Amino acid sequence: MTAEGTRVDAKKLVEFSTKALQKLGVPEDDAQITARMLVASDLRGVDSHGVAHLSMFYARRIRLGIINLNPKLKIFSRTPVTATMDGDQGLGFVIGHHAMMEAIHRAEKTGAGFVAVRNSTHFGAAAGYAMMALEHNMIGMAMTNTIAGVVAPGSTKPAVGTNPLTVAVPAGKKPPFVLDMATSVVAAGKLEIARREGTSIPEGWAIDKEGEPLTDPTKRIHGEGGLLPLGGTPKLGSYKGFGLAVLVDILCSLLSGSPADILRKFTPHTRGLAGNHFFGALRIDSFLPLENFKKSMDEMIEAFEALPTLPGVNKIYAAGGYEAEIEKDNKVNGIALNAKVIEDLQELAKELDIEYDL
Amino acid sequence: MTAEGTRVDAKKLVEFSTKALQKLGVPEDDAQITARMLVASDLRGVDSHGVAHLSMFYARRIRLGIINLNPKLKIFSRTPVTATMDGDQGLGFVIGHHAMMEAIHRAEKTGAGFVAVRNSTHFGAAAGYAMMALEHNMIGMAMTNTIAGVVAPGSTKPAVGTNPLTVAVPAGKKPPFVLDMATSVVAAGKLEIARREGTSIPEGWAIDKEGEPLTDPTKRIHGEGGLLPLGGTPKLGSYKGFGLAVLVDILCSLLSGSPADILRKFTPHTRGLAGNHFFGALRIDSFLPLENFKKSMDEMIEAFEALPTLPGVNKIYAAGGYEAEIEKDNKVNGIALNAKVIEDLQELAKELDIEYDL
Repeated sequence: MTAEGTRVDAKKLVEFSTKALQKLGVPEDDAQITARMLVASDLRGVDSHGVAHLSMFYARRIRLGIINLNPKLKIFSRTPVTATMDGDQGLGFVIGHHAMMEAIHRAEKTGAGFVAVRNSTHFGAAAGYAMMALEHNMIGMAMTNTIAGVVAPGSTKPAVGTNPLTVAVPAGKKPPFVLDMATSVVAAGKLEIARREGTSIPEGWAIDKEGEPLTDPTKRIHGEGGLLPLGGTPKLGSYKGFGLAVLVDILCSLLSGSPADILRKFTPHTRGLAGNHFFGALRIDSFLPLENFKKSMDEMIEAFEALPTLPGVNKIYAAGGYEAEIEKDNKVNGIALNAKVIEDLQELAKELDIEYDL
Repeated sequence: MTAEGTRVDAKKLVEFSTKALQKLGVPEDDAQITARMLVASDLRGVDSHGVAHLSMFYARRIRLGIINLNPKLKIFSRTPVTATMDGDQGLGFVIGHHAMMEAIHRAEKTGAGFVAVRNSTHFGAAAGYAMMALEHNMIGMAMTNTIAGVVAPGSTKPAVGTNPLTVAVPAGKKPPFVLDMATSVVAAGKLEIARREGTSIPEGWAIDKEGEPLTDPTKRIHGEGGLLPLGGTPKLGSYKGFGLAVLVDILCSLLSGSPADILRKFTPHTRGLAGNHFFGALRIDSFLPLENFKKSMDEMIEAFEALPTLPGVNKIYAAGGYEAEIEKDNKVNGIALNAKVIEDLQELAKELDIEYDL
C-alpha cells in the first residue's frame, strides 16, 4: 500500500470540491453531497470514481448544460416498501443520495425498502450508496445501468452496459462486506487506463467486431465488438455475467419505466445522461437479533482471512476488506492524487476563480 | 433439440414420483409438491435436478432417516415484509415451497416479501421457487447455500459453496427471464458428468491442491483444491464470483441464524443436510403499471433475439429463453429420460412395490 502521488487531506478535498461545484452553479447542499461521495471513493482507493472525474466529467457536463442543477425530484409511491423516482436529469449523486435515504427510511418502518430511479445521470461509484445502509444496520444495495458496451455471448454487438451491482453488509469488529462489481469481466475504465498508458490488454476482456480477442485497446470501435460479460466465454459461464447485466437493467430501467440499454439512442452529446438506478435496504434486525448477525459476519470473515494462500498472495479478503485497509491509511496520511489529477484540479480552480489550497 | 432417451409424459411422471415418495413415508401433499418441482426441472431440460435424483439422492436420504418427514415448520416474523423460517430438517422442496409462498403473500400485501430459511435440506433446482412468483406478476428470487467446494481467489481450500442464485421476471408474450446460475464457473454436477463419462474437463473450471488447473475430474480430493468462482482467475474477475457466493451465504445462512459455509462441519452421513435458503418477491405493480413493464420486457427480449450472431450460433436468448423452448417441446412430446434414469426408477418401483407405468 505505497500510494504514489501527493497526499491530500480528505476533509480539505471535500471542501475544495464543494466550492468548485458551487461555483459551477450547484446548490450548497447538493455540492456537499456530491463532493463527499467523490472523496469517499478516493478514500477507499477507487480513484476511477473519485475527484479525478470532477473536472473532465462532471464540470464539463454541467457547463454543457446537460445536467439540471435545480431538478424537481418526484417520488411515486404505491406501497410503504416500494417507490419509483424521477430524477429530472439532476446530478446523479444528489438523486442517488435521496433515493437511497428513501429506501432506508422505508426499511426502518417496514423491514425493507426499494426505490427504482429513472431520468438520473452518472452517479459515480455505486458502492457509496449501498454503504449508506451500514450505519443503519441494514444490508444496502445499489446498481445502475450504463451505456451498452458489453456483448451478449455469441454476438459481437453491445447489448447491455457494464451495469455494476453493489451490496454492502455490516459486520461487527471486522470491516463491512462490500461487493462492488461491474457485471462485465472488467469495467470500461480498465480499457481507458490501458489506452492512456499505451499498454495492451489481456485476452478475455474484450472482443473485436469479428469476435476475436481484442488486445489493443485503441482499436475499440463503439457499437462493434465490446467488453465481455463476466465469465468471458460461454464455456466459462459468460451467460451468467450477461444475465446479471440484464437483471441490473431490468431493475434500474424497466422497473423505473425506462427502455432497456439495448433500445436507448444517444448522441455523443447525451451519452452521460439517462442513467437509471435501483436502491434497496433490508433491516437486519427484522430477521434476527443484530448482535448475532454481526458476530457470525466477523467469524466468517476471520475464517476467510485464515485460509492458506498461494505463493505471492498475502491474505484472503472478503469483499471490501482490502479497500477498508486503504481507507484507514488514507484517512491518516491523506489521499494520494497523481500529477495529472492535481493539474486538472488546479486548472479548474483557476477557471472558477477559487483558491487551490490542497 | 433432439432429446435422446425415452419420452415420458410429464403428468405421469409426477404421479409416479408422488406415489414413490408416499411409499417412502412422505405425506401426500408434500409428495406432490416434491414430485412437481422435480418434474418441472426435467421439463425445462435441467435434468441434473430432476427425477434422476429421486432414487439415489432423495429416496436414499429418506431411508437413512436423515430427513424429517413430518417437520414442524416454524416462522419467526418481526415485520409484515420479512421473516425467518426453521425447516426442522424436512424435505427441502416442501420447506422451499412454503417459504416462497410466504414471501409471495407478504409481497401481495406490502410490495415485497423476504424469507430466510435455516435447517432445511437439499431443495432441488432453485429456479423453480423463483418462478413461483411469475404467475403472481412478481419478480421472484431464490438462492441456497451448498457445501463448501469452491476456492477463494488466491487460495486452494474450499471457502464457499457453488451457492446458486436465481431470479425470475415475467414478460408479456415472450417467455419469462429466468437467471439460474451457480456462482462458480460451473456447478459441481458438471464434474460428476465428466467423471461418469470418463472425459477431461476444460482448464478454468477447477484447480488442484497446488493451485494448478485440474483437468482430470477423477483426481478431485474433497477439501483440497476445488471449483473456481465465476470469473475463473483474479485477472478475469474471480473475486466477483467469490463475492456473489459469499453474498448468497450471508443471505441464506447468516440472515437465517446459521453459521457460514466455511464454518460448518459435516460427516459423510450429513453432507446433504443443513441447507439454508433465501427467498424474495417484489410486486411489479407496486413500482409501475404491470402492462407497461411487460411490454418493455418483450421489447428488450426481442431486441436480444435480433442481435447479429457469430458463426455457429443460432440465436441470442435472454436467460430462460432456451429452457422455455425445451419446455414447450417436452410438454407436447414428453420428457426424454436416459436409460440409466429409467433403470433407477424401475428398480425403485420394484423396491417400493408400486407399478412402473411410464
